[in-house]
Amino acid sequence: MITEGLKGRDFITLRDFTKEEIDTMLDVALQLKADMTMRRRHDDILPMRTLFMMFFNPSLRTRNSFEAGIFQLGGHGHFLQPDATRLPTLEGEDQGYGSERISDVARVLSSMGDCIAIRILGDKVGWEYDKSLKIIQEFAKWSKVPVINMEDNKYHPCQGMADVMTLRELFGRDLRGRKLGVTWTWGSSPKKPIAPHHDFMYAASFYGADIVFARPPEMHIDPEIEAAIKENVELNGGSYSVVENMEDACENADIVYAKNYVCLDLLPPVTSKPEPDEMVKLFAKYKGWIADEKRMLMAKPTVQYMHCLPCERAAEVTDYVLDSKWGNACFNEAENRLHAQKGVMACIIP
Amino acid sequence: MITEGLKGRDFITLRDFTKEEIDTMLDVALQLKADMTMRRRHDDILPMRTLFMMFFNPSLRTRNSFEAGIFQLGGHGHFLQPDATRLPTLEGEDQGYGSERISDVARVLSSMGDCIAIRILGDKVGWEYDKSLKIIQEFAKWSKVPVINMEDNKYHPCQGMADVMTLRELFGRDLRGRKLGVTWTWGSSPKKPIAPHHDFMYAASFYGADIVFARPPEMHIDPEIEAAIKENVELNGGSYSVVENMEDACENADIVYAKNYVCLDLLPPVTSKPEPDEMVKLFAKYKGWIADEKRMLMAKPTVQYMHCLPCERAAEVTDYVLDSKWGNACFNEAENRLHAQKGVMACIIP
Amino acid sequence: MITEGLKGRDFITLRDFTKEEIDTMLDVALQLKADMTMRRRHDDILPMRTLFMMFFNPSLRTRNSFEAGIFQLGGHGHFLQPDATRLPTLEGEDQGYGSERISDVARVLSSMGDCIAIRILGDKVGWEYDKSLKIIQEFAKWSKVPVINMEDNKYHPCQGMADVMTLRELFGRDLRGRKLGVTWTWGSSPKKPIAPHHDFMYAASFYGADIVFARPPEMHIDPEIEAAIKENVELNGGSYSVVENMEDACENADIVYAKNYVCLDLLPPVTSKPEPDEMVKLFAKYKGWIADEKRMLMAKPTVQYMHCLPCERAAEVTDYVLDSKWGNACFNEAENRLHAQKGVMACIIP
Repeated sequence: MITEGLKGRDFITLRDFTKEEIDTMLDVALQLKADMTMRRRHDDILPMRTLFMMFFNPSLRTRNSFEAGIFQLGGHGHFLQPDATRLPTLEGEDQGYGSERISDVARVLSSMGDCIAIRILGDKVGWEYDKSLKIIQEFAKWSKVPVINMEDNKYHPCQGMADVMTLRELFGRDLRGRKLGVTWTWGSSPKKPIAPHHDFMYAASFYGADIVFARPPEMHIDPEIEAAIKENVELNGGSYSVVENMEDACENADIVYAKNYVCLDLLPPVTSKPEPDEMVKLFAKYKGWIADEKRMLMAKPTVQYMHCLPCERAAEVTDYVLDSKWGNACFNEAENRLHAQKGVMACIIP
Repeated sequence: MITEGLKGRDFITLRDFTKEEIDTMLDVALQLKADMTMRRRHDDILPMRTLFMMFFNPSLRTRNSFEAGIFQLGGHGHFLQPDATRLPTLEGEDQGYGSERISDVARVLSSMGDCIAIRILGDKVGWEYDKSLKIIQEFAKWSKVPVINMEDNKYHPCQGMADVMTLRELFGRDLRGRKLGVTWTWGSSPKKPIAPHHDFMYAASFYGADIVFARPPEMHIDPEIEAAIKENVELNGGSYSVVENMEDACENADIVYAKNYVCLDLLPPVTSKPEPDEMVKLFAKYKGWIADEKRMLMAKPTVQYMHCLPCERAAEVTDYVLDSKWGNACFNEAENRLHAQKGVMACIIP
Repeated sequence: MITEGLKGRDFITLRDFTKEEIDTMLDVALQLKADMTMRRRHDDILPMRTLFMMFFNPSLRTRNSFEAGIFQLGGHGHFLQPDATRLPTLEGEDQGYGSERISDVARVLSSMGDCIAIRILGDKVGWEYDKSLKIIQEFAKWSKVPVINMEDNKYHPCQGMADVMTLRELFGRDLRGRKLGVTWTWGSSPKKPIAPHHDFMYAASFYGADIVFARPPEMHIDPEIEAAIKENVELNGGSYSVVENMEDACENADIVYAKNYVCLDLLPPVTSKPEPDEMVKLFAKYKGWIADEKRMLMAKPTVQYMHCLPCERAAEVTDYVLDSKWGNACFNEAENRLHAQKGVMACIIP
């Protein structure tokens, strides 16, 4: 556990933090969670602080966990829907009186409050893979207060924190010998984010787990993230392997993490524009990829199903898997969004 | 006054509570109201608690009274508009990535906060009479924290609490010998809820009042509610009678409660789909049904007009009646939404 | 500094307040700002108070500064978007069940909370110049608690307060000998409000400054406001003059306040309906009116650029002017919205 070096930092990707820094924020998160169990107040941690929550995409877990979390720490969150303000734009994209330059929005908000959290992804940036991160980085460049990434096309670091917090509660801090079966599944929509897969595996790769990742050949993740996961595994022990059928991931697994995500090769910058129809066609080839009872029974008896939610029932996971004891971790994972983010905020907001 | 048995309960219909339980919540509400008059803080009652307020229909009184109320008790309310989240659905109604099963939404929210309040009625459920209550019950089934009904097609228990609180302030706890003239009125829209009529009469029927209910023959209320009112009257004294002209209700009344509501016989499940044009035509036969000066003058000199608001002026009530001394109770009734709901929350939220 | 006479007052126009009253609210604002610098809490000033913030137009600064401000003072703000409630209407404009009379909304809200703040202007009132103020006054007439004007077509008193607070921080309380170059600029949209110009000059006219106001001949401000500014200048010293080119305003100026605004002669009541196309054509004659490097270099070396924001870059001001040291005051002005409004609220909310 460290005590210095976190206050005032942005929380944009987990890759900006060391394992010790991530562990420290998780230690804090677990202590705050224990406080809640006892109903011990901790609103003296960030009293009078204002958190601006800018949502360009809909949200249930993220919005409610941040709004409740900052309140429990003594502060207040502003829920900013895009239609309640003018559109924040990058240089060169101004739309007269209908938009406001990010540099101006960031300077103004950061003079009025203590943290800016942003969710922007998918159709809100025309599915341009790198653009949503660039927008968040532009906010961070001009903001005088920490910026938190509430999910872009590439990263969902708050989800990654909640994921490893859940793993730590299940297995302890050391995941050596634990098999995490991670898999793509079929889904009816060509719109589901890939960032949760990225950050689940990246975060888990710090702790020595054996990650077996199953996906159809066309459904690779971002090669840059994959390289970072491999590097982590080399440094921290454990293993990372890619397979092309779900069964290899599920067999004897401690965790089955199964979720649909978009095909990066059918989105900009690989293609000139998003190809949703092609993507739906591609997905159709793999309709049997679902976390079902048969596959869960191949795993360890204590196996738990994980998913960032919302999940598409009967596509990504069966009702039975989610609503049985197998689904418990999935709802703990959702609850841990609250606690993990409180840990992050308590550490970085000055 | 009772001290046990309320913590952790859902507040979905008044029919789930005994007279003693309702009285206890009102006693608490009145004490909290007195605190406000003295500006005595009571934010130590529900400190750090989070209330999720899910509104599928617009609201002025309900939203603002709950948001102010939970804040005054020490907590914080999240205003959740439907367009800010995915649509919560019952089993069999999933819409892929555009919806999320109520069982999942309820489990996630209840792990992050302390109470879920829901308003859903009318066109949001295609005017299916029973469906909105079923949705609220589904939330309650899966939620680990209390669920509050902020109005469905059938019940508006928070309004009922505010109504009897207003009656108690006017007349004391014992309404024996008091005549409550309750009446349907004309209105220009085929969309006004019947739930306030149900819960005004149901709540009042605990206290010995003489309820005289006037409505055109086609405009009966839900027979199940009517039976419950009659049963209450038998147990608690007072009387309930139905008449077919407003004058009989207004004559010598202590209260004139006059409001438009939909015709149940022109909505599902009685009809296969809503029949708004037929309803407007039916209403036209009774355009003279309005709370006007002439009718108020038939009542006791101290008579007060009541309505849950918003009212349609010149349709349900004249400007003069609402803006004169006759309208005072109507605005007290609105204010009491705040205090009554605080009484409920203070008693049921653990 | 005065101690009596502000509690319970509405804050609708600066013209309702004396110089001593305005100075007192600014003194309070500066003390609250100093508290924030030290992180000294002052949430004991308005504990448990509820502020209703009704926005009929989008907002970044106003919404966030009020919501953060009331929270820092111990209260809570409700963000009320028009689509979340029924439309509040004046007498004679009721729309059946789709609207609610302002008299009713104001009475209900003021029974549930402690202050009502309203922004309404431009297309939300069909560009009828006087109507937005009339609506705010109607709220005030029926409200039992103070009403704050968050901008109408004519006045933006909160902006005026932040503006003179910024001037006081730059130059002290006495502006004698300071030249304020105020100017209209070109803009691409026929929709930008004139109220900020009105209240910048009106507020500054209390402090002895020399106001040189440049605008094309067609772009006069409201003659009533201009008369009030002249009257103030006569009483308090300083001067007010109107010129027809930007250079005369910028030359040797301490402040260049440069912003586009609508042409009053192309809006009701002068015209029968708004004439946006005519306005765009008129503006085109003056496309060179922009706060650029050349003009800033004509001013004093210490000159600062001011604008209420959001500004239209490349139309009202160049990127270089805004993003260089010249733009500092502009962002201080935005931050001072928070502190100035806290001063107002702390003084007027009982």
